[in-house]
Amino acid sequence: MEAAGAANGPKKNDDQRNNGAKIDGPTNPMVTPLLTDLYQFTMAYAYWKAGKHNERAVFDLYFRKNPFGGEYTIFAGLEDCIRFVAHFSLTEDEIAFVRATLPASCEDGFFDYLQSVDCSDIEIYSISEGSVVFPKIPLMRVEGPIAVVQLLETPFVNLINYASLVATNAARHRFVAGKSKLLLEFGLRRAQGPDGGISASKYCYMGGFDATSNVAAGRLFGIPLRGTHSHAFVSSYMSPDEILEKSLHSHDGSTVCEDFVSLVQTWLSKLKWSKQLAGIFGETNQSELAAFTSYALAFPNNFLALVDTYDVVRSGIPNFCAVALALNDLGHKALGIRLDSGDLAYLSCEARKFFHSIEKEFGVPDFGRTSITASNDLNEETLDALNKQGHEIDAFGIGTHLVTCYAQPALGVVFKLVEINNQPRIKLSEDVSKVSIPCKKRCYRLYGKEGYPLVDIITGENEPSPKVGERILCRHPFNESKRAYVVPQKVEELLKCYWSGNTDKTREDLPSIKEIRNRCIEQLEQMRPDHMRRLNPTPYKVSVSAKLYDFIHFLWLNEAPVGELQ
Amino acid sequence: MEAAGAANGPKKNDDQRNNGAKIDGPTNPMVTPLLTDLYQFTMAYAYWKAGKHNERAVFDLYFRKNPFGGEYTIFAGLEDCIRFVAHFSLTEDEIAFVRATLPASCEDGFFDYLQSVDCSDIEIYSISEGSVVFPKIPLMRVEGPIAVVQLLETPFVNLINYASLVATNAARHRFVAGKSKLLLEFGLRRAQGPDGGISASKYCYMGGFDATSNVAAGRLFGIPLRGTHSHAFVSSYMSPDEILEKSLHSHDGSTVCEDFVSLVQTWLSKLKWSKQLAGIFGETNQSELAAFTSYALAFPNNFLALVDTYDVVRSGIPNFCAVALALNDLGHKALGIRLDSGDLAYLSCEARKFFHSIEKEFGVPDFGRTSITASNDLNEETLDALNKQGHEIDAFGIGTHLVTCYAQPALGVVFKLVEINNQPRIKLSEDVSKVSIPCKKRCYRLYGKEGYPLVDIITGENEPSPKVGERILCRHPFNESKRAYVVPQKVEELLKCYWSGNTDKTREDLPSIKEIRNRCIEQLEQMRPDHMRRLNPTPYKVSVSAKLYDFIHFLWLNEAPVGELQ
Repeated sequence: MEAAGAANGPKKNDDQRNNGAKIDGPTNPMVTPLLTDLYQFTMAYAYWKAGKHNERAVFDLYFRKNPFGGEYTIFAGLEDCIRFVAHFSLTEDEIAFVRATLPASCEDGFFDYLQSVDCSDIEIYSISEGSVVFPKIPLMRVEGPIAVVQLLETPFVNLINYASLVATNAARHRFVAGKSKLLLEFGLRRAQGPDGGISASKYCYMGGFDATSNVAAGRLFGIPLRGTHSHAFVSSYMSPDEILEKSLHSHDGSTVCEDFVSLVQTWLSKLKWSKQLAGIFGETNQSELAAFTSYALAFPNNFLALVDTYDVVRSGIPNFCAVALALNDLGHKALGIRLDSGDLAYLSCEARKFFHSIEKEFGVPDFGRTSITASNDLNEETLDALNKQGHEIDAFGIGTHLVTCYAQPALGVVFKLVEINNQPRIKLSEDVSKVSIPCKKRCYRLYGKEGYPLVDIITGENEPSPKVGERILCRHPFNESKRAYVVPQKVEELLKCYWSGNTDKTREDLPSIKEIRNRCIEQLEQMRPDHMRRLNPTPYKVSVSAKLYDFIHFLWLNEAPVGELQ
Repeated sequence: MEAAGAANGPKKNDDQRNNGAKIDGPTNPMVTPLLTDLYQFTMAYAYWKAGKHNERAVFDLYFRKNPFGGEYTIFAGLEDCIRFVAHFSLTEDEIAFVRATLPASCEDGFFDYLQSVDCSDIEIYSISEGSVVFPKIPLMRVEGPIAVVQLLETPFVNLINYASLVATNAARHRFVAGKSKLLLEFGLRRAQGPDGGISASKYCYMGGFDATSNVAAGRLFGIPLRGTHSHAFVSSYMSPDEILEKSLHSHDGSTVCEDFVSLVQTWLSKLKWSKQLAGIFGETNQSELAAFTSYALAFPNNFLALVDTYDVVRSGIPNFCAVALALNDLGHKALGIRLDSGDLAYLSCEARKFFHSIEKEFGVPDFGRTSITASNDLNEETLDALNKQGHEIDAFGIGTHLVTCYAQPALGVVFKLVEINNQPRIKLSEDVSKVSIPCKKRCYRLYGKEGYPLVDIITGENEPSPKVGERILCRHPFNESKRAYVVPQKVEELLKCYWSGNTDKTREDLPSIKEIRNRCIEQLEQMRPDHMRRLNPTPYKVSVSAKLYDFIHFLWLNEAPVGELQ
């Protein structure tokens, strides 16, 4: 279990605990303090040189725009950030590398300082993982000595960006597919690197998928695993003559069929000459028939066949049915077929008709409901198109588009300084959407009468919190004409303490992946439907308190130079 | 060095050697035999159950279409595949997990077999890493017992897909930027997971980038590192009064300036009232001035300033120049500025004019050539647009679009069975471009009179190789009317042995990353320019021998069912 064990277990032997529970190291052992941009170290040196490294800073981690043209995002990646922080320290070799990289003029004292750096003086307030979140609202607020917080920036943004993006993508695929369909993540081979694959499997499950093909992810996170065989398996056989061990026990173990291969052949001729199916197919492909028969002999209770290696209707489906009916004679129940090319809507309907005909003509109960899985470059659009055409697919295997987030492969999570030494800071920009909201903040979600979330509001840290039944003014942070009074029926504080360094503040527990997945599904169901629809969704409102609004604009005027038109 | 060391070093302690050289384990310790699709294990069981698992199979790894609308691809990821193979074996815990995952009916003998599985009976022929490659040509030919080769499929495709995609993306960015520009990869925070970040840095360097900001990648692969400071650093300062330690040694160490802060202020007023610069700026931002001064005190010989936190022309550039000129008084040479927003073409030209004016008015040699780095959502298109507008940028920092391959985030590398037990196999499809080319093959690149590669040709393994000066017929594999005679001036065999299991066949050495990078740059330079241009590039020709052509079509007719129109 060496390597995967290392990946699963803690990175270091420190006994880091969270409310008494031990926190493992990062999932990927490559996530170390060096997995960061060089400028975090050059800045750390400059802070140290100026004696500024321990000044207390507050940074917000947030994004500016929902991905995929939608109006919501799933927040994911928090646990890995906390695991990183719990074990944050630089080894001697790592420090030696930093020393060799920085200019030779850098003073020794800095490298002594680096040896002492850990996250015992850091506090992290965060929205819970798996929550539905919106632009501008801080997902995490990170406080601590400025040099240390800067060293966390790149790994945090890396860990949150893709996790949130792919969880959102998974949730969007689930939304289009509907609750009743089985969604399987098949993306490992197309993912952006090995960890892209591991993360994709984890966060797609979190976003509402049911299973993955990725064995390592199944092992690391306990995600259900699915998979049967490929085209290569089919074409590796030449004909049924190859099959030497032909016997198969019945499901209850009471009898043995000595020649399962002949039983399959018998069923194939029955099908060929049946009334209902006459003329649909002639000679089926023999290498395919051999492969299916052999696979059924290996997995009599888990027989699922890929039927498009040669010709779905004229070979794959009849071959599958012959094997499935032979299994049925012995009390085994075939699982179904997988389609991996062609017109999936049409082929699934043809397959369903074929299955129903068999149920009727041969009196095989439930054969009409044999499961149909589809894969082959599926994405939100193709799922939507399949729904519109009508189809008989029960399960979707989705890979490339899901895991690489093909429709938008990056989320723009940023990490901005909002306060230092209790002084609020603002980052200006000619693009208003890039101006940061200053101050250490609190954030609330306000719910309306019908139980839907109405608006998120950001306040200064020391403002009184919004109260149920009390009218509060919610203002757009940058547009003075956009504002509304709200009387919340429920108020939820969004940022909770997930890391408190060596203080004795209570921290939130890190929930299991299943708990996070459930939270995500519940939160999505709670949203007003017009925010969630694919076409022209209504933006969810994000606001600031009146007091914070005034302060932002005071600071903005203070910092911006006055131009002169010439 | 614990964690990064583990990532760098071999996964296991086996003493795997290649021509006597020890081969390390995979870069990412999460790359284990379980990093695969479940169906590879279910198929392995079915092969084993049928007594077929040791049948000798040949698989080709190839792609069908060049990415990014181009007509070439860079092949990358080979070394990590070989490192994976060199250490391939399942631990007891891994086997226990597979056993728990497969149906309980699976026989014990299979798990004993899994314990014995390694790659001592595998042979891998591959194109050299860093080569320019084209669709349909096998990048790798993998031979061995079918069950073992299947277990390699998913990790190989995962390791090759993204590596080749991002190396190609880097090469395309280099092509547009031109040879003289410095290209810096800044993508870690936007990469798809931690390993996406590590791989991106490695393969962008391979594809022609000069440096990365990713410290871990710098350490693992020896890639030059670059980076200075962020907006947060600038806004973490309030005013120059904060700076307590104000003294700075001159470059030669002979003198000390006791108040560098005042020297900077003096230069700022000189600039403000200078003839050339009059009216360009008034009061500059004091927090920015403080940050620049402090950064220069920390890095007097490496001063590079991010100038767009408040206002590039009215604050950032004048503040930078004041600090740079103060440094210059002490014999230190400032590196330059970085622009991270706004109209990069315009701002770079304004900055250059400002620098030239200073060189002229204050007689500072070379000040006009102060380096200008630009970053901010750059990609091929924006580089091209900048070239067309005219700009004064010397270095580009590229992140999101480069590392996520935003323009096309996946390459469709596939792994197809082409022969088993010396019997050629074909995978049919209604889509002709998806039909696989059967047989164990050899591949050659044929060069023309002008030294350019003319065509790649695939032959059966036992056909005589093409010869210099001898006419050979090159046929399109699927289009009977497309064919051409070629008289090659040079013939290069493409597939070379990189892994030969426990046989004593000579293997190619694994070159260093710098050697691979050089190969890549040389190969790109060797291509005929019309294949490389961004707009309507000419497709490079990929062909099969006349004999292989005939065989493909014989096999195709043999396998495809004859339809009946109704």
